[in-house]
Amino acid sequence: MIPTETIERLTDLLARFEREEIEAEALCDDLEAVRDQDIARAMAGLSTEGMIRVLEMLPSERRCEVFDFLEPGPQYQVVERLDEDVAGALLDTLRPDNMTALLESLTPEQREVVVRLLSPKRARQAFKLLGYPPESAGRLMTPDFISLKPHWSLAHALGHVQEHGARSETVDALYVTDEDGRLLGYIGLRKLVLGDPHAEVESLMTDAAASITVSEDREEAARLIQHYDLTALPVVDDGGVLLGVVTIDDVMDVVEEEATEDIHKLGGLGAKHLSLRGASMLELFKKRIGWLLLLVFLAIFAAGAVSLFEETLETAVVLSFFLPLIIGSGGNAGAQGATMMVRALATGDVGPKDWLKLWVRELGVASALGVTMAAAAWGIGLFYGGTMLANVVFLSMIGVVVFGSMVGMLLPFVLTRFRLDPATASAPLISSIADIGGILIYFGIATAWISATAAA
Amino acid sequence: MIPTETIERLTDLLARFEREEIEAEALCDDLEAVRDQDIARAMAGLSTEGMIRVLEMLPSERRCEVFDFLEPGPQYQVVERLDEDVAGALLDTLRPDNMTALLESLTPEQREVVVRLLSPKRARQAFKLLGYPPESAGRLMTPDFISLKPHWSLAHALGHVQEHGARSETVDALYVTDEDGRLLGYIGLRKLVLGDPHAEVESLMTDAAASITVSEDREEAARLIQHYDLTALPVVDDGGVLLGVVTIDDVMDVVEEEATEDIHKLGGLGAKHLSLRGASMLELFKKRIGWLLLLVFLAIFAAGAVSLFEETLETAVVLSFFLPLIIGSGGNAGAQGATMMVRALATGDVGPKDWLKLWVRELGVASALGVTMAAAAWGIGLFYGGTMLANVVFLSMIGVVVFGSMVGMLLPFVLTRFRLDPATASAPLISSIADIGGILIYFGIATAWISATAAA
Repeated sequence: MIPTETIERLTDLLARFEREEIEAEALCDDLEAVRDQDIARAMAGLSTEGMIRVLEMLPSERRCEVFDFLEPGPQYQVVERLDEDVAGALLDTLRPDNMTALLESLTPEQREVVVRLLSPKRARQAFKLLGYPPESAGRLMTPDFISLKPHWSLAHALGHVQEHGARSETVDALYVTDEDGRLLGYIGLRKLVLGDPHAEVESLMTDAAASITVSEDREEAARLIQHYDLTALPVVDDGGVLLGVVTIDDVMDVVEEEATEDIHKLGGLGAKHLSLRGASMLELFKKRIGWLLLLVFLAIFAAGAVSLFEETLETAVVLSFFLPLIIGSGGNAGAQGATMMVRALATGDVGPKDWLKLWVRELGVASALGVTMAAAAWGIGLFYGGTMLANVVFLSMIGVVVFGSMVGMLLPFVLTRFRLDPATASAPLISSIADIGGILIYFGIATAWISATAAA
Repeated sequence: MIPTETIERLTDLLARFEREEIEAEALCDDLEAVRDQDIARAMAGLSTEGMIRVLEMLPSERRCEVFDFLEPGPQYQVVERLDEDVAGALLDTLRPDNMTALLESLTPEQREVVVRLLSPKRARQAFKLLGYPPESAGRLMTPDFISLKPHWSLAHALGHVQEHGARSETVDALYVTDEDGRLLGYIGLRKLVLGDPHAEVESLMTDAAASITVSEDREEAARLIQHYDLTALPVVDDGGVLLGVVTIDDVMDVVEEEATEDIHKLGGLGAKHLSLRGASMLELFKKRIGWLLLLVFLAIFAAGAVSLFEETLETAVVLSFFLPLIIGSGGNAGAQGATMMVRALATGDVGPKDWLKLWVRELGVASALGVTMAAAAWGIGLFYGGTMLANVVFLSMIGVVVFGSMVGMLLPFVLTRFRLDPATASAPLISSIADIGGILIYFGIATAWISATAAA
């Protein structure tokens, strides 16, 4: 039942078919009991020619389904090389939201190739969907939906569903619209089936369906679907006219993608969505080098900060033993704070208005963390360099942990205030800022202590 | 349409009702057009007494719905203080999966209080669900489902659905079972409605429905639902007997929770799921101190590593200026690698078997990153300390970036091999390990260079 096993077996099978070790007929029999999604997933390991051979071997209805489940990259490679007729047929049956995803991923030239293969009707639809902003609900929605009129009888409505239902992705939630197409409410297929056939749709529909406007962010669509436990969310224009439907399975992919994006940003990686399996070395290099260079340049300030205390260091080289500990601890505490804050802001657990309350609490928590860590570090300081060093390490530790935590907690809020993505307050950025502060605090305290001791 | 606004307005309204500034009747009117989920969310701001007053004011059917949407914490606080009859009625109508979530969150004593209030039938059901392992599909499923027999006519099957459908969460996907309750296949409500009433269920059902065994991990359920674009997944025992259904809305919460857990683990925080809004200072302290102390103790080794090179440092204090840059860069590159790898392993983008291919690629990418960063650092080294320092910094930079990247990339795989959670290879842990290696590489190269120069 675990798809990874099925997919590994299938991948093997398809590879052997590609190397012409098995006949098309034998493969066909083997594929009968396999699901379309698994075939599509297993095809990822084939060359373009191999993919085309597998597709050509499938019965035409299945071919379209399997094609629908391929990733945009392979989809384009396949249609580019196929006969125009076959390619056009495959593209015309692509689900509208998947068509948007395919076109989104292409260069303008490639896009032209695809659009030329489409039927005029599908081409118009594709242009319309692409007109909505990137990452908006409009890009995610399918414009195939069934709408019912409020004064219809349930029997009439059921007849309408039976007639038009085959094409629509979402017959579970049916939407009720007025003469101008404005959304009035929804009715579940279940109510339609279970209700009195003579009753009017209006009497059984639920008004005030949750909905989203077409240009709103797709994350908002995900939040609404999660919050209201929906399986589908209607998408309307500013006038309330129903334009399409976002379904829960698309939204689940959004939740996963956005989580991955946030994780990558927090880890000091570019936001660009990249499959680690398929990425080239150049793509990986480009995704990672930007942040790393930025952090190298921030480290110039850290080097500058240390150089301010050259004299102190020459007096007590032992101070440098503790540099990794002191700056690391500030960075770690800050990164923790930032990580929690960014995620809580992303899931809506806390809002921008909560900053003061959270700041006060963070100050308390950071002080407690600082004192505990300082106590542990005091012992280490005593072992390496005696009481004076232990005391300097103790005081510095409290200072850097509190400083790092404050930076880590407040930066996400500041970024949110300026409408920037709080996930940019990544752990490495917080660490680098905490480093500089930590160096100044540590050597500042050490210098003061040394001169006080010298004076005494 | 954005729920945050609605919820803020509602929170205000309920707070005013709690302070007795508005009458129950006025509030009742206001709540009429509001959704149950929003009321539940807004109630989070009230005291237990406030929550009870709001619940008592709602009509009984709505009261159960709103109670169902509360978080387990408030649910327990409410039933503990309510009259036994009312509390029992609320608990008996709780959806089975939410009941499992409530009982999971309680201490044994609290659990006893709740179970005593349940009807014997619900209590038995609750014990059965709690018998499945934590985080398993069994804990997530609802045992309310409709099963059809293969030889029934569609008309008979539809009649059965109409009779039993009201209680079931999932009428969209109906499961077909044999005489012993073993899962044979499924049929959509849509097919049942649209098909010939005299046809047999068997002729229209889809066999080989994706399913999961009851003790498998809930993340596996999420993966299956996502991969096959399902809205519900049947849960079976080892013999294939249908036990319950996991629905996509529950799974979406799992996807979000697991992402948050991974983000927290990567950020060097405990895995315990904690709402940042509701957490106390002590809870936050406990969640964070474990990792921080572990990292402090790892830093002992860093201090020890620096102390090995005391002599070198005394000869050239300027070396310490670059300590933050060198060790930070290794840690940053390593944290990037670990972050990408952990996420790719979690989403199934790469598998444990891919390690060799990924390792070779990471070696190439890390070398390129190291050379680029070393070139930037060379300039900084030249500015602060002349050619020799610049050359030492250049070589060390390549070394630490490659070393850090290798640790960051391989540790998640090693953890996976030993069946440990790869997310434990958090960014701070990788940084701390990279610190120690970085110190040895940096001062090792510097010492060698200095003695070579001295010898020349």
